[in-house]
Amino acid sequence: MSAHTDQDPDVLITSPDPMHPANHISELCRKFYDLGWVTGTGGGVSIRKEDLVYLAPSGVQKEMMQPEDMFVMDWKTKEYLRRPLNYKPSACTPLFLAAYTHRGAGCCIHTHSQWAVLVTLICESSPDWATRTCFSIKEIEQIKGISRGGSGSDEIAEGGRKLGNLGFFDTLRIPIIENTAHEEDLTGALEQAMLAWPECAAVLVRRHGVYVWGKDVGQAKTQAESLDYLFQLAVRMHGMGLKWT
Amino acid sequence: MSAHTDQDPDVLITSPDPMHPANHISELCRKFYDLGWVTGTGGGVSIRKEDLVYLAPSGVQKEMMQPEDMFVMDWKTKEYLRRPLNYKPSACTPLFLAAYTHRGAGCCIHTHSQWAVLVTLICESSPDWATRTCFSIKEIEQIKGISRGGSGSDEIAEGGRKLGNLGFFDTLRIPIIENTAHEEDLTGALEQAMLAWPECAAVLVRRHGVYVWGKDVGQAKTQAESLDYLFQLAVRMHGMGLKWT
Amino acid sequence: MSAHTDQDPDVLITSPDPMHPANHISELCRKFYDLGWVTGTGGGVSIRKEDLVYLAPSGVQKEMMQPEDMFVMDWKTKEYLRRPLNYKPSACTPLFLAAYTHRGAGCCIHTHSQWAVLVTLICESSPDWATRTCFSIKEIEQIKGISRGGSGSDEIAEGGRKLGNLGFFDTLRIPIIENTAHEEDLTGALEQAMLAWPECAAVLVRRHGVYVWGKDVGQAKTQAESLDYLFQLAVRMHGMGLKWT
Amino acid sequence: MSAHTDQDPDVLITSPDPMHPANHISELCRKFYDLGWVTGTGGGVSIRKEDLVYLAPSGVQKEMMQPEDMFVMDWKTKEYLRRPLNYKPSACTPLFLAAYTHRGAGCCIHTHSQWAVLVTLICESSPDWATRTCFSIKEIEQIKGISRGGSGSDEIAEGGRKLGNLGFFDTLRIPIIENTAHEEDLTGALEQAMLAWPECAAVLVRRHGVYVWGKDVGQAKTQAESLDYLFQLAVRMHGMGLKWT
Repeated sequence: MSAHTDQDPDVLITSPDPMHPANHISELCRKFYDLGWVTGTGGGVSIRKEDLVYLAPSGVQKEMMQPEDMFVMDWKTKEYLRRPLNYKPSACTPLFLAAYTHRGAGCCIHTHSQWAVLVTLICESSPDWATRTCFSIKEIEQIKGISRGGSGSDEIAEGGRKLGNLGFFDTLRIPIIENTAHEEDLTGALEQAMLAWPECAAVLVRRHGVYVWGKDVGQAKTQAESLDYLFQLAVRMHGMGLKWT
Repeated sequence: MSAHTDQDPDVLITSPDPMHPANHISELCRKFYDLGWVTGTGGGVSIRKEDLVYLAPSGVQKEMMQPEDMFVMDWKTKEYLRRPLNYKPSACTPLFLAAYTHRGAGCCIHTHSQWAVLVTLICESSPDWATRTCFSIKEIEQIKGISRGGSGSDEIAEGGRKLGNLGFFDTLRIPIIENTAHEEDLTGALEQAMLAWPECAAVLVRRHGVYVWGKDVGQAKTQAESLDYLFQLAVRMHGMGLKWT
Repeated sequence: MSAHTDQDPDVLITSPDPMHPANHISELCRKFYDLGWVTGTGGGVSIRKEDLVYLAPSGVQKEMMQPEDMFVMDWKTKEYLRRPLNYKPSACTPLFLAAYTHRGAGCCIHTHSQWAVLVTLICESSPDWATRTCFSIKEIEQIKGISRGGSGSDEIAEGGRKLGNLGFFDTLRIPIIENTAHEEDLTGALEQAMLAWPECAAVLVRRHGVYVWGKDVGQAKTQAESLDYLFQLAVRMHGMGLKWT
Repeated sequence: MSAHTDQDPDVLITSPDPMHPANHISELCRKFYDLGWVTGTGGGVSIRKEDLVYLAPSGVQKEMMQPEDMFVMDWKTKEYLRRPLNYKPSACTPLFLAAYTHRGAGCCIHTHSQWAVLVTLICESSPDWATRTCFSIKEIEQIKGISRGGSGSDEIAEGGRKLGNLGFFDTLRIPIIENTAHEEDLTGALEQAMLAWPECAAVLVRRHGVYVWGKDVGQAKTQAESLDYLFQLAVRMHGMGLKWT
């Protein structure tokens, strides 16, 4: 039913514009490799633009990612409009789609950053159930890099509810879900966390990593960087016996 | 009343010279991103050259900063001579101006470096008021990278007062001010710290980062790097139970 | 008796294809230098392609490695088809050959990564013999980046034996052998470990580093990165008093 | 008396060859900046080639170093054959010359690496005088990257005395001298340490950094990298309560 199905699928990933999703994802993969987020083909990135979803494939060396490696899905029908023959679709796909469906996101980033993993391990060792299932931190400037809900505008207020980015005196909360044997089996728990924590901008996966989203690439990347900064700072604070909240 | 107001504002940011402030700030933003100082669009850089102040905008991905993204202000009238439509001015602007006004600086750098934040957290946990409000360190060679007052010459002595850079046996002192909900509200405390600590080359902001200045880009960058080195070393020394002073 | 012996040996290392082993090893050396794996001319890389074995030489600055520096060996006769005059063959050569002989590997990577060394030091300090001689970790997502045996397909099952990559709930085990005065003297212990631990994808060398292999460069690199990630995470977990298994 | 005095001094620093000392030092400065060895204009590099000594100047941003910034000295007369007007000679100059005079070195590298500084701080806190004044480590593979005396050949044996590189079971020893207010005042203590420790390949300066030399750039760089690796490993071992010797 897609307007795209009669096209040569390579048209979908061919553009001289560095901001075209196929080029942009390739460039992000190189940056995220340098940040240690996608080591050993782990992690992933997806962009949704209008009715097209672009997805980095499973098992690709992220720093060598090329537009030709990209999967493209029709957002309405969920059918692949382009499938590279030498790759499998990413097991993260249903998790990226959850961010598009439940948060209206335009980009979703999944990292295996050790800081994310270590934060879930520190929380796991807490005797307190609330601490075990949610990472909380406050009064650190970088919190201001995170929007409520993860893809909210930082301009519009609506029906009295506070919108926009978190402030310095707000508490940032990121729920932690338990890992499963297969990545796609995380989908239910991730969607549940998105519904139970409407202000969260990301979901941590215990002993695994984090899913972060944004209304567009700029916001998703800013939030992924700000959260990783906060996870790293929290691990260092924990090592010095300093409390996060 | 500026001589520049009749110009096409893009002339102000267009030059083939890599040392032109618009190009130089863009290059510095890329370097500072790699150093982890401006993660998640945090931090900022400004250069004052003659009667023009160049300012990186708010919310820009620093490693992708371009000359076109630059704000340019008239130093005398404090009016913007160039405002990119897609960005807001940086909330750091009044803080950068404070360094130009009170220290005759030609460049000011604001980082969210975790080492700066961790040093303020370690100091915060001290029972001693003086330690809580000022970071002090001595007998580390890198201290010699810092000038008295932050924008002093290292040549000229004046009225018997010692000028130039700190020596190995001098104590480096950087005052720490408390963070506020909004960045611009830091201005008063920052100016007060500059007046109360005439020898300081920077001001730390608790749980936030640091403002460092210099007479020109070279000195500001050297001092920002030297201070970050000292903050990092101090955090590592603290972790090993070694004293800073 | 090689078909290659009448050739100009430089033909073996000359190709415009970045995936040609002589170019590929040079590129990998630059990446591994940036990862801190081959500091001070330490470590090494080898690719076996059909009946040719490509080997980075001893004592080369890895980030400056060029195709001209490459040794090429005939896999059947074990004779050098190309020997650069200004270098000695790598002392790792018999260890790389062991991975090709006993595991059917197509690529072998040797790093001096500090995380590998630190893991062997932590294990060494254990009172328990099994812990001293084998690094084990489980329930970390990145374990899924490692195949059973190190060069297995992740598709084929055979005679009821489980093949493919490790799962999240499997235990990853990497045997640790003791270091010797001369690198080539490690060969016996390395081969013994390969036979005693048929599922291992790598062998750690105490106070020295790690040997990792794969069916091809992609798999060897993915496994080297995934293992280094796990070693680093384990060291950090140890520092926080968290158990690996 | 120099054969070079009638030349245009810029001839001394102009060459298309990347291995020419003026180009090579510039390239090394960029690498060392990325390694965190020459932060904030600290540290330095010098090459001696035949009767010419090339020296990076004082106060230069090392990652922006250009051949034009180079000082060139006549090795026999110790007169400058080329002095850039915008820079002062490095205060490290007499220390670099000491390595050329007393060790026949062809290159000397001075870093402010935090790992070097931290090792001197850990040693300083020891109750034992021998530990306070000399860093010792053994049974780590990377020790094999260091030659006896720092600029020895690893081939030639002479009068029964063992030459060549250290072995895995040898103890690496690097003497530590106390810092002084002015860098040039270190010369006497550095020369004394070179004479008192004929096998040492470097001298640590307490709370300051390290001087490392080699017969040529390749050996000096390999030894500087290997030592920095060992200092970093030692700091990490110390943090885990593991002994170095």
